Amino acid sequence: MKNILLVIEYEGSNYHGWQKQPGLLTIQGELEKALFKATKEEVELIGSGRTDKSVHALGQVANFKTNCNIPGHKYKYLMDFLLPDDISIMDSMEVDLDFHSRFDAKGKIYRYRVYNGKLPRAILRNFTYYYPYELDIEKMQRAAEFLIGTHDFSSFKVERSDVHSSIRTIYSIDIVKTKDVVEFIIDGKSFLHNMVRIIVGTLLYIGSGKFKVDYIQEILSKKNRAFAGITAPAQGLYLEKVYYD
Amino acid sequence: MKNILLVIEYEGSNYHGWQKQPGLLTIQGELEKALFKATKEEVELIGSGRTDKSVHALGQVANFKTNCNIPGHKYKYLMDFLLPDDISIMDSMEVDLDFHSRFDAKGKIYRYRVYNGKLPRAILRNFTYYYPYELDIEKMQRAAEFLIGTHDFSSFKVERSDVHSSIRTIYSIDIVKTKDVVEFIIDGKSFLHNMVRIIVGTLLYIGSGKFKVDYIQEILSKKNRAFAGITAPAQGLYLEKVYYD
Repeated sequence: MKNILLVIEYEGSNYHGWQKQPGLLTIQGELEKALFKATKEEVELIGSGRTDKSVHALGQVANFKTNCNIPGHKYKYLMDFLLPDDISIMDSMEVDLDFHSRFDAKGKIYRYRVYNGKLPRAILRNFTYYYPYELDIEKMQRAAEFLIGTHDFSSFKVERSDVHSSIRTIYSIDIVKTKDVVEFIIDGKSFLHNMVRIIVGTLLYIGSGKFKVDYIQEILSKKNRAFAGITAPAQGLYLEKVYYD
Repeated sequence: MKNILLVIEYEGSNYHGWQKQPGLLTIQGELEKALFKATKEEVELIGSGRTDKSVHALGQVANFKTNCNIPGHKYKYLMDFLLPDDISIMDSMEVDLDFHSRFDAKGKIYRYRVYNGKLPRAILRNFTYYYPYELDIEKMQRAAEFLIGTHDFSSFKVERSDVHSSIRTIYSIDIVKTKDVVEFIIDGKSFLHNMVRIIVGTLLYIGSGKFKVDYIQEILSKKNRAFAGITAPAQGLYLEKVYYD
């Protein structure tokens, strides 16, 4: 028995998210189909976490157990021939049998890309959120600092989501502007459903002057989704990296 | 009567190229449909030149004449609501009645993007040519210098193409590497069919050691397509800019 880790890049545009669902095209579903062709086994692929419809990944991590004797490092070459071309394996390796891509993750980095030009761009439509209002980067960065650390992020999660605790830890938020693209790089231990997208939507309201910088403290303290900004749309979001010990 | 100039960006992935063809999805066809909605007239849209299936544009230029009284600068906002989201108008303006986007063009800049990493990347698949072999940029740049100026480019055109003359002028070729992406920026007065893609395919053969640097002079002098390298695939090519007096 081998435990194989995959590092996966995908463009989420044509998929109903990561998680396998009957009758729907999903990343996990396509990967398991390709792994069946490779291993002749119905493997169970464990992802580090789900991504929503239209969200992309540059470094999603998943693992599966198999009796197939293909060496771990070969999957990254082999899978290229078995997968649709909007899913690609960037690395693969054999890991300890007790490794679990979700439970063992120490943190994740998400990147959110905003196109801040004056007119929408055809080529960026599936890869950025088009937000044409003038943005004050320094104000957004100051507001972001209030979110660093361990907080109850109830105001920054999907209302209907039912989790034991809404307490999460964010290590850093960096906001970088390059020409007309503004990127939010958010590093945290783990995230609530839509948390990154609601944080970005809220920071955009601050950057465009709709909310004041200090108001972010009030949003946090209210523990109520209604106080935060919009949920920034899926196509700007990338799961960039999942890291382990 | 007004003459309106449009600057157009498009992702070519889903289109059978620029030129209108019955029963096929084309950029010109979609633009004329949208212009009919805007102007209530069947306008004839004149492009600066064609682009092939799957080729992109960042700055294609086209013009059309209309009796509609919409001010020229408004089309860039208006068309956003009438066009599919993989075609966008980046600028629009009224120009002199005798302006012709093809005849008046003084030159064009094409950009060709190569992804030179070791494994194919899902997110870049429609926007770069995946070429995993090690490339010597300096050798490609030296070879490119032989193409600058006015030459008979018969070796660098589609064999079946039937044009009066294969003499063309290239002003500059710049080759820039940023991380794993290699870009060829080619500026010329005008180009033969597939000329940019055959130049790039030939330079890639030189960069990867398949052809020697000096061999490019022999290719030019043979005036025969069979001597040049491959036609680099469409999805790496961008019409970046068309310029006028």
